[in-house]
Amino acid sequence: MNCNTPTDVRFSFSGFTQRAGKTGDHTDGWGIAFFEDKGLRHFVDHERAIDSPVAKLIREYPIRSKNVIAHIRKATQGVVSLENCHPFVRELWGHYWVFAHNGDLKDFDPRLVGPYQPVGDTDSERAFCYLLHHLRNEFASAPSPERMFPVLRELTARIAGHGEFNFLLSNGDFLFAHRASKLSYIIRQAPFATAHLTDDDLSIDFNEVANVDDRVAVVATLPLTDNETWTSFEDQTLNLFVNGQLVMSDSTQTSPRN
Amino acid sequence: MNCNTPTDVRFSFSGFTQRAGKTGDHTDGWGIAFFEDKGLRHFVDHERAIDSPVAKLIREYPIRSKNVIAHIRKATQGVVSLENCHPFVRELWGHYWVFAHNGDLKDFDPRLVGPYQPVGDTDSERAFCYLLHHLRNEFASAPSPERMFPVLRELTARIAGHGEFNFLLSNGDFLFAHRASKLSYIIRQAPFATAHLTDDDLSIDFNEVANVDDRVAVVATLPLTDNETWTSFEDQTLNLFVNGQLVMSDSTQTSPRN
Repeated sequence: MNCNTPTDVRFSFSGFTQRAGKTGDHTDGWGIAFFEDKGLRHFVDHERAIDSPVAKLIREYPIRSKNVIAHIRKATQGVVSLENCHPFVRELWGHYWVFAHNGDLKDFDPRLVGPYQPVGDTDSERAFCYLLHHLRNEFASAPSPERMFPVLRELTARIAGHGEFNFLLSNGDFLFAHRASKLSYIIRQAPFATAHLTDDDLSIDFNEVANVDDRVAVVATLPLTDNETWTSFEDQTLNLFVNGQLVMSDSTQTSPRN
Repeated sequence: MNCNTPTDVRFSFSGFTQRAGKTGDHTDGWGIAFFEDKGLRHFVDHERAIDSPVAKLIREYPIRSKNVIAHIRKATQGVVSLENCHPFVRELWGHYWVFAHNGDLKDFDPRLVGPYQPVGDTDSERAFCYLLHHLRNEFASAPSPERMFPVLRELTARIAGHGEFNFLLSNGDFLFAHRASKLSYIIRQAPFATAHLTDDDLSIDFNEVANVDDRVAVVATLPLTDNETWTSFEDQTLNLFVNGQLVMSDSTQTSPRN
């Protein structure tokens, strides 16, 4: 989720966690990270999200954030353990960066000699360390997201040569979303409507909870609601959201608004 | 807390959080980090711990860990915000490192050009980044804690020249504890007894919850229980705990057991 105002993610998270045992088989741990300005709340659990006490807290406790990344894991590489749960966090240029991956990278074992070393043994954390290592080499201090875009695009293409590489990456100011073959988004803004979850019988009328100027982008592997129109990104495209708006994309289909 | 077996910290945490508003004035945020093998659960909140919903979860949900660092903040430098809550986390040599500081460093503003940059604006996070930067320069890969000890001792002395520098530092395998002027510890092992909190009317009989081989070291600014004998470290000493045992210290008073 990427928004122009701190927003409560409980509705989306409620549907999402049903996929960890009820409507999906992503039961090998989960995690969620909420930015609050430069600060970060990071929750991970190797229990399945549908019955984790920590997930219950998240469903009940309204944490408001402009940038949230959540993940439910179906292990392809790496054992089921806390250190292999997404999202992963590292600091770069005095900001926390949060990363989650959906996919499977084959024979991706780059030599990582810099300051970013994987703690666990997933292809995903290796990819995150690889991205940060090369971004840090390219930029001595934090670039604008527009300057970062082509560099991240190039690094992503290298990694995507090894397999399925859908990912989300945020520093709390903006959100990069790369689709390999599965990733959709929706932007909610006035006039608001009622949304109904795909994975649970739960509805929310955004007119009752949102202000007229609020704009919220939600990006997910599969649409989270069944009565709204979600847009699929084009395959193998990188997309940048700022303040709830898609501002850059290398897709040939979409027309980013600036 | 540093233990030889994964241990539930709820008893100590219950007393500790009373100091965030009831028996103490450390009300400017709090945090706790639990290692589970190489993985980490890290909770921070800028609400005071005594009425934070996240602290309530921690008091009720038995998370078992061999190494836990918790902190309640009384702001001396840096605003009250999530990014300034201790403990701080960074990755070094493929391990997460967790750091919490009690004290106040004056004019400590080292040039930090390496990969560890503060996200917030506390003296504490600057000290942590300084330590990691120099440890990484000294050791290309993870040293034993015994080899780290003299290097950390030297770095600590440099920082402690700027003011009060009580700190805890752990990578999940061991715990370094530096006392400037305030830090005590207790080691609980068989034969176990009943402990009673200083800050709340709560007792626990460790005979009922511990196994005969369990050994748990608890280190705190001020003793957490009022019917046990806590030991004060000597001022300006670095101390190393492994598996619930004090194994190294530069104190002239204590006789570390190996």
